[in-house]
Amino acid sequence: MARIVQKFGGTSVANVERIRAVALRVKAEVDAGNQVAVVPSAMAGETNRLVELVTSVSKLYDAREYDTIVSTGEQVTVGLLALALQDIGIQARSWLGWQIPIHTNGVHGKARIESIDIEEIEKRLERGEVLVVPGFQGLGPDNRITTLGRGGSDTSAVALAAALKADRCDIYTDVDGVYTTDPRITPKARKLDKITYEEMLEMASVGAKVLQTRSVELAMKHGVRVQVLSSYTDEPGTLVVDEDEIVEQELVSGIAYSRDEAKITLVSVPDQPGIAAAIFGPLADNGINVDMIVQNISHDNNATDLTFTLPMADLERAIATLEGKRGELNFADIRADKNVAKISVIGVGMRSHAGVAQRMFTTLAEKGINIQVISTSEIKVSVLIAEEYTELAVRALHTAYGLDAD
Amino acid sequence: MARIVQKFGGTSVANVERIRAVALRVKAEVDAGNQVAVVPSAMAGETNRLVELVTSVSKLYDAREYDTIVSTGEQVTVGLLALALQDIGIQARSWLGWQIPIHTNGVHGKARIESIDIEEIEKRLERGEVLVVPGFQGLGPDNRITTLGRGGSDTSAVALAAALKADRCDIYTDVDGVYTTDPRITPKARKLDKITYEEMLEMASVGAKVLQTRSVELAMKHGVRVQVLSSYTDEPGTLVVDEDEIVEQELVSGIAYSRDEAKITLVSVPDQPGIAAAIFGPLADNGINVDMIVQNISHDNNATDLTFTLPMADLERAIATLEGKRGELNFADIRADKNVAKISVIGVGMRSHAGVAQRMFTTLAEKGINIQVISTSEIKVSVLIAEEYTELAVRALHTAYGLDAD
Repeated sequence: MARIVQKFGGTSVANVERIRAVALRVKAEVDAGNQVAVVPSAMAGETNRLVELVTSVSKLYDAREYDTIVSTGEQVTVGLLALALQDIGIQARSWLGWQIPIHTNGVHGKARIESIDIEEIEKRLERGEVLVVPGFQGLGPDNRITTLGRGGSDTSAVALAAALKADRCDIYTDVDGVYTTDPRITPKARKLDKITYEEMLEMASVGAKVLQTRSVELAMKHGVRVQVLSSYTDEPGTLVVDEDEIVEQELVSGIAYSRDEAKITLVSVPDQPGIAAAIFGPLADNGINVDMIVQNISHDNNATDLTFTLPMADLERAIATLEGKRGELNFADIRADKNVAKISVIGVGMRSHAGVAQRMFTTLAEKGINIQVISTSEIKVSVLIAEEYTELAVRALHTAYGLDAD
Repeated sequence: MARIVQKFGGTSVANVERIRAVALRVKAEVDAGNQVAVVPSAMAGETNRLVELVTSVSKLYDAREYDTIVSTGEQVTVGLLALALQDIGIQARSWLGWQIPIHTNGVHGKARIESIDIEEIEKRLERGEVLVVPGFQGLGPDNRITTLGRGGSDTSAVALAAALKADRCDIYTDVDGVYTTDPRITPKARKLDKITYEEMLEMASVGAKVLQTRSVELAMKHGVRVQVLSSYTDEPGTLVVDEDEIVEQELVSGIAYSRDEAKITLVSVPDQPGIAAAIFGPLADNGINVDMIVQNISHDNNATDLTFTLPMADLERAIATLEGKRGELNFADIRADKNVAKISVIGVGMRSHAGVAQRMFTTLAEKGINIQVISTSEIKVSVLIAEEYTELAVRALHTAYGLDAD
């Protein structure tokens, strides 16, 4: 007997027929003697519909009311899923965020789960009842509904699995696992049986949208074994686990890419102490996350060019912020480029192996691809290149690191 | 300064534009220095959509999950209305049934409000905050969401007005008040300035669907002054008040009709003690409410014919129930008739005046309309007639009792 949390995304509960299919998957676990908690998202499209209602009433909306409204998407699916389970003879009931409660902090619209009161629900689990718990929502310290931000249902599921000390947290989605790279770019992409939390985090942070970043962080912190798998097949998926569980660690586990990047270059900035703080302070104050940063060596005139990348969506706001500080920062020009992509090579194996970055640079050079910016971490090397080379770069690197399927 | 509860039906909050119009009506009361609680229904069509989702998943659904799902309709409108109010500078927030809480009994799907904790919300009112409270929902003793049954939002508003000792409960709807009869039947129908609780109850019970019956009962019990008015105009509506408040009471206040009736006649039932109990007991056990009952005098063979009316929707079920008891009841035949209508003359004035019923019978006779069944109460005379005479009867009675507009 095992204790399992199953999470189903919006496409998996998109209509009544799909909800019935989910109920059958839950039943299979129950029939196998397992204790099950299920965490569904809102029906596909529902959250967008609700968000549009909110923004059509008020541009600068009160996040507390936003949460009250948008959380109804999951409230509907937990009720429907509980009914579908009862309909096939499974004892089940819905537990809303405020009923359990799932306590969060008070940051409405982007709340973080702080604790989950499991006493009552654990009793129910042990009695054989299936818990149907809405993703994405909790209860704030103000006794109002909070939501966790888009994609928060993954986090709900992992947090619940951690609180209930579940043996596994199965994340059902519309892909059947984590791949060495995007299969739409190369048919040689391979599904990974296992991947470490750290690698999954790096994959997520560079655009592989299989799992929400915070859910992976949480799983890593609490040692929750996460499985990513398809709600359309019965194939096993990819296990996201601790490094110790992976016996034969490969050098590189995957190649990720992101086209949601933009690049800003400030031309001829005075090269003096405090200039970086003067530039990035106002951006941070406006909630703009800067990613890669490169500062060139000084020109003769004691000025330097400063280049950094940021999410495409923040570009206009970043330019406006910097233009507003032009007098203070004293730069000659701002140049923005949206036609860039970030390509990352990821693998915990590179910690103990030299030459991983070098192979990346060589491979790209052989294809005539110019590297604009480089950044590295312990288990990742990322480069910024012109967007038009994205597919070529990903395919070349996939082959160069021996990831191609036979 | 007054304390006012405003209730808006589904068509009044059908879309974002209508919600903004509601916000302006609330603002007008706030600007006039009043304390305001607003109770919106779900957006028109939304409750039906949610009920269809429920029934498409499960025919014999768990009413607790039904409540969790269907209550989201009002949860969305309170959020949107709070946002629309904030957007025009009014301090407002939503208060869900479980947050206040509005305590109900545990009859999911048809719960009754038992008490409302007003301590916190009254403080907010006194500080000038507008309360936005969902109609139709409460919190059951099992800590789960309950709903009050269709049309329950009127009841929510009146219960809130009673708990808050509000000076008035304004029910905004798509008609502009209570009329002497249905204006679609005669253009001579007049809007009433005032009507008593008792008359309103009788009007509601015979099909004038302006206010939900339970809300009128509750208003009467707690002396809540209810105003029915249109959300499309600025005209005053109809006040539903205590008899004492109506100085010049008219003999008859209105003519109501209902086509939702059916008639059953049991032919040649043994005329013996206990036979009525044997017939109506099983019907009551099946939740079928019988309305008018007539038992004819005995035939020679010591048998009688028994006629009664019931809601059209229950007809098939009633016949099946009675057929199932045929051996026991020993009747010769069951005859059912759907082509009947109930016409009622209503007025508290008839308590102290003779001849009201007589005028009804004479008027109908003059038009050649046969009366099938008669029933009377202190303030109402109802007759069952063939459905095709409905409009003719209503118009004739409206004129006969001097109700026609000039």
